[in-house]
Amino acid sequence: VSRATRFLDACARRPTDCTPVWLMRQAGRYQASYRAVRQGRSFLELCETPELAAQVTVSAVEELGVDAAIIFSDILIAAQAMGAPVEITDQGPVLASPLRDAAAVDALHVPDPTTAAPTLLEAVRVARRALDGRVPLIGFAGAPLTLASYLVEGGNSKSYAQLKALLFGQPEIAHRLLDKLARTVSALLRAQIAAGCQAVQLFDSWAGILGPADYRAFALPYLKRIVDDLAGLGVPRILFATSCATLLDVMRESGADVISVDWRIEIDEARRRLGDGVALQGNLDPGCLFLPPLALEARVAELLGRVPRTGHVFNLGHGVLPGTPEESVRRLVQAVHRLSAVGP
Amino acid sequence: VSRATRFLDACARRPTDCTPVWLMRQAGRYQASYRAVRQGRSFLELCETPELAAQVTVSAVEELGVDAAIIFSDILIAAQAMGAPVEITDQGPVLASPLRDAAAVDALHVPDPTTAAPTLLEAVRVARRALDGRVPLIGFAGAPLTLASYLVEGGNSKSYAQLKALLFGQPEIAHRLLDKLARTVSALLRAQIAAGCQAVQLFDSWAGILGPADYRAFALPYLKRIVDDLAGLGVPRILFATSCATLLDVMRESGADVISVDWRIEIDEARRRLGDGVALQGNLDPGCLFLPPLALEARVAELLGRVPRTGHVFNLGHGVLPGTPEESVRRLVQAVHRLSAVGP
Repeated sequence: VSRATRFLDACARRPTDCTPVWLMRQAGRYQASYRAVRQGRSFLELCETPELAAQVTVSAVEELGVDAAIIFSDILIAAQAMGAPVEITDQGPVLASPLRDAAAVDALHVPDPTTAAPTLLEAVRVARRALDGRVPLIGFAGAPLTLASYLVEGGNSKSYAQLKALLFGQPEIAHRLLDKLARTVSALLRAQIAAGCQAVQLFDSWAGILGPADYRAFALPYLKRIVDDLAGLGVPRILFATSCATLLDVMRESGADVISVDWRIEIDEARRRLGDGVALQGNLDPGCLFLPPLALEARVAELLGRVPRTGHVFNLGHGVLPGTPEESVRRLVQAVHRLSAVGP
Repeated sequence: VSRATRFLDACARRPTDCTPVWLMRQAGRYQASYRAVRQGRSFLELCETPELAAQVTVSAVEELGVDAAIIFSDILIAAQAMGAPVEITDQGPVLASPLRDAAAVDALHVPDPTTAAPTLLEAVRVARRALDGRVPLIGFAGAPLTLASYLVEGGNSKSYAQLKALLFGQPEIAHRLLDKLARTVSALLRAQIAAGCQAVQLFDSWAGILGPADYRAFALPYLKRIVDDLAGLGVPRILFATSCATLLDVMRESGADVISVDWRIEIDEARRRLGDGVALQGNLDPGCLFLPPLALEARVAELLGRVPRTGHVFNLGHGVLPGTPEESVRRLVQAVHRLSAVGP
């Protein structure tokens, strides 16, 4: 019973029997079972086959013992649905036609997710049934700024020169793009909740593109709008951002229920700066999963010791890395449960 | 006369007539003159032709009106000199044989820069003569952690999974690599100083790979050793790191004379956390060079207003971005000089 509610209780800052844990990218190619399902299929084929997407979603929970499932999908499903074709390669996502001008932005549409992302929503329904109440299911989407970076750069970037040229050089077009992305993301998260998701996470994976003042100008209004739009649905809204050490005030103002922080800030420092009115998720460096067992356990104990148990969801500071030993992930989950069940 | 000493005075926290300014990657492909010199040559060919490397170094100073020159080179020259062949492609550097085990680390040697990097040192001598005392010449090297990331990942990386596997999984080998890199970097910077460089900058461009505690463990000892080794030579030692908001204490402990910060932290916050015993360099988001003239000027005024003039070297938070308008860079330099000459 406690495993079924632990994660949602922590999100709502209610007491728990131990600290709940799940991991970003907990279903992925570091797992043998995932690789078996992926064999002979592209990443997007897997995302778009509801039974299989649900299967890898649920397998991760069963294999790892985590306290939440997250639907297997990709943030760029939203871009696809808006009319920007995406290919996921081993080097990352590639967009055939990066957006560079007003016409390209105007050509994007704000889709109805029930017709534009039906396989994702079906995967949510299948996964929710298969989980059968054992743990809650998290839905997700990319945050507008991060989605914009992929759309404008055409993939991953080292410098984000194209995106910055748009944001700073043509802010009106940039805001038009961000507005469309915010509406798309809102609708997509609402649809995932309607299909059965019990929490949602916004991934602002490239938040560090911008300094605090620009993040406030180009990210906050859209984050706030999405968070507001999902108010009253009874699901916790989690906001994740990397390089967030100087963005915590802005993240807090978004109104999100849970702030998910990366490893670049000590979690107690994040707790102190965020105040008590919000739950905190994070923030072990995913590289720690390469540590030997005892050293990993010491890191977990150290992290747990830095913050009160109530209102803390244990997670990594970013996704599980390729090549991570599966055994190490299982050990991590067990260590979080065991070490947090003792003491206050 | 004041242009000749402005930069070194600011590094030493002596009063200046206005705030000195130079820009990381001020010589680069955003410039027509640079593209003309590069035509028909690879990036490394340009680095390794002393007359041409000196020419682009000096042209940037003449075209932009900046207060310091930085020798045109690449941080991976050090890797080449250690026996790890590098190719610089449009997508970034590529190392033919990424280091993954103890044998590969042991095969690297700590080179004598006078025989291993003679063209770099000759470029320093030629540039120094051509500058003729107009502005000081800065030498540089990659910081050990950043060099290790290229050597282990084999190029740029999104997740640094290979490097983290080494640091966390095989720390003894990692420290052996970092030790060799520190010795190489020390010798390379000493040689550049002997050849005529009047300041040196360590680029820890991927410092954000690690959280504060791990940065302390894997970066600080080596930064400190390099900074100590260059003490008493009469040249300011500048330490640059990205995602540095939570690393400032550690950077301060390195003993560097100047701390160069990226745009992810407000500069007055950095000033406050670093205290008064060190000069500060930075930190305009390079994307701001895409702003229209008046908006750019407003950003410059805003940044200058956040910190006292003494002990501040104006720079970007990272290198000039590809596609940056040249006119905008010239305007930035003029604005820094004009706006900082007024007031305290």
